[in-house]
Amino acid sequence: MKALDSLYEAQKIAFSPFVFQTVYTMLELGIMDELYEERDGLTVTEIASRKNMTEYGVRVLVEMAKCADILELNDDKYSLSKIGYFLTRDEMTKVNLMFTQDICYKGLFHLKDAIVHGKPEGLKEIGPWETIYQGLSILPEQLRKSWFEFDHHYSDNSFGEALKIIFQHNPKHIYDIGGNTGKWAIASTKHDPSVRVSIFDLGVQLKVAKANIDAIAEIKDRVDFNERDMLNPASEIPAGADVYWMSQFLDCFSEGEIEAILLKIKKNMKPDATIFIMETFIDDQRFKAAEYSLVATSLYFTAIANGNSKMYSSSALKYIIEKAGLETVKEHRLHEDRFHTILEVKLPK
Amino acid sequence: MKALDSLYEAQKIAFSPFVFQTVYTMLELGIMDELYEERDGLTVTEIASRKNMTEYGVRVLVEMAKCADILELNDDKYSLSKIGYFLTRDEMTKVNLMFTQDICYKGLFHLKDAIVHGKPEGLKEIGPWETIYQGLSILPEQLRKSWFEFDHHYSDNSFGEALKIIFQHNPKHIYDIGGNTGKWAIASTKHDPSVRVSIFDLGVQLKVAKANIDAIAEIKDRVDFNERDMLNPASEIPAGADVYWMSQFLDCFSEGEIEAILLKIKKNMKPDATIFIMETFIDDQRFKAAEYSLVATSLYFTAIANGNSKMYSSSALKYIIEKAGLETVKEHRLHEDRFHTILEVKLPK
Repeated sequence: MKALDSLYEAQKIAFSPFVFQTVYTMLELGIMDELYEERDGLTVTEIASRKNMTEYGVRVLVEMAKCADILELNDDKYSLSKIGYFLTRDEMTKVNLMFTQDICYKGLFHLKDAIVHGKPEGLKEIGPWETIYQGLSILPEQLRKSWFEFDHHYSDNSFGEALKIIFQHNPKHIYDIGGNTGKWAIASTKHDPSVRVSIFDLGVQLKVAKANIDAIAEIKDRVDFNERDMLNPASEIPAGADVYWMSQFLDCFSEGEIEAILLKIKKNMKPDATIFIMETFIDDQRFKAAEYSLVATSLYFTAIANGNSKMYSSSALKYIIEKAGLETVKEHRLHEDRFHTILEVKLPK
Repeated sequence: MKALDSLYEAQKIAFSPFVFQTVYTMLELGIMDELYEERDGLTVTEIASRKNMTEYGVRVLVEMAKCADILELNDDKYSLSKIGYFLTRDEMTKVNLMFTQDICYKGLFHLKDAIVHGKPEGLKEIGPWETIYQGLSILPEQLRKSWFEFDHHYSDNSFGEALKIIFQHNPKHIYDIGGNTGKWAIASTKHDPSVRVSIFDLGVQLKVAKANIDAIAEIKDRVDFNERDMLNPASEIPAGADVYWMSQFLDCFSEGEIEAILLKIKKNMKPDATIFIMETFIDDQRFKAAEYSLVATSLYFTAIANGNSKMYSSSALKYIIEKAGLETVKEHRLHEDRFHTILEVKLPK
């Protein structure tokens, strides 16, 4: 890259909060939608009149957006560029942007302190909790919406393929560690009418999972609930599982904590049992945009969620697995949902 | 641009506050300087040990910075890219970044409201004033530093060339409208030992200017101070000037206000007098990085400074000049400082 271009890119970063808020404002005020409809573009005066805004307000926004290659300008008419199109119409991009604005923007101001103190110092901008998990169910409506849409976008389409992989092993009993709202327990007991699932999670999560599962007659007798703090050194996972399932769970912990969790499972594990770990690994992504999303998510964990976890690379997680005395025997990259990989882990032979 | 590349660029924008805070944190913690010194790069472990940080803290930062092309990774060693070099060592880039962090980051969260209400709704994040001008002299130290370094970076090198242009007209008496700290009055009276300067400004500014000028024996008898609110419809600018000087002054006002100020000057202006308007116009910049800086500065005016002003294009300002019944007879682009243009304005013949 030429020096002048690098200088320009450096300026884009130095002023990036201006561009971010410009796009958010143009989305919220409906300017992006208006420009999406009018492919030939609109003048400042036309936008101002349609959106009942001052020309001044429209002008500062579109001038910034044009400079950032989000809009194009021809004969006084502004129209969406391809980048502007994705910001307006692409689901992943919008989910990312709203998550950034509602959950992360203010908290990221404290990123430096979060890193220095090893605590999610930005969390205070949205609530008085130690970790965001304590506040999720009581977040203000708009923030809740943005958090869950982000979370679901990166998980909703992975279960179909995951079920096929896990049930090749014909498990009779699955331990769902970090079972959360019970989604996997529901999917797997529905998938196989004879399988049993034991959920292990914090009490506050079990309540939600139990309510969801008790409402489904055909499965409720095959699921049980076990309150367990995986970070408590005294807590145990009993023997009995054919398959251990952890989906987007280990990324909520530090490397040392992940090793401790794996050791806890290993301690009572049957010789033929299998641990399946489903994650979105930063080095397994086919698209740069997806890799970017995941890497940024690490800083959400640092500054806002809990201060010490991150999205891992598959090589980092396999290293921890090995350190815990376990063996990664297979690696399944899911094709349908683009984001996930399942690691198949066993006791060494 | 290909669709996949545009999608990637859209993601960069959606997560841009993450990248901005990553760079700010790496600058403040000295990681960027460390990498500048070690051209061959450093591993995560080496950075953590040199800066006394956790490897986790270093890793989330460098992974984000690498994804954003600020760092490069070779054999586990991270080093500065060209973009990273400018973020670490280029004066304009650092001045812009610190201004964004200290003055604008939090306030920009309220950009949408600022545009809807026509008020600098973000200003409350740094102080309880109606406009930032009331708070400038009492800003907390770090914020004051960032504001003034930003301001000075875009003005300090323009006076030498400007003096040559203005004194080709051999003015006996200059009216310095919006004289601020008295910098121009000092420079011009020192430049020509016979010229007189009358400063017109708000009382709070005149105090500062008077203190600065009274300290310089050789000029103090040739400068007088006139308290004037240019936005007050009843205020007048008397006759008497050969030259009117307005430097980075009109960009603090809306288009309508600029017209009113020009009409106020025109009313009592001598037929041969000249108005010189020095501005940084967004359409007169030779470098994209400079244009970007100025366009973003508009949104600082919108969200934080006063809610209704901006950096103008020269065509927009010439249009207002014409509307006020005046004529732009010449346009001087300054070469030394790269940013400024001086418009030479007269009464129509």
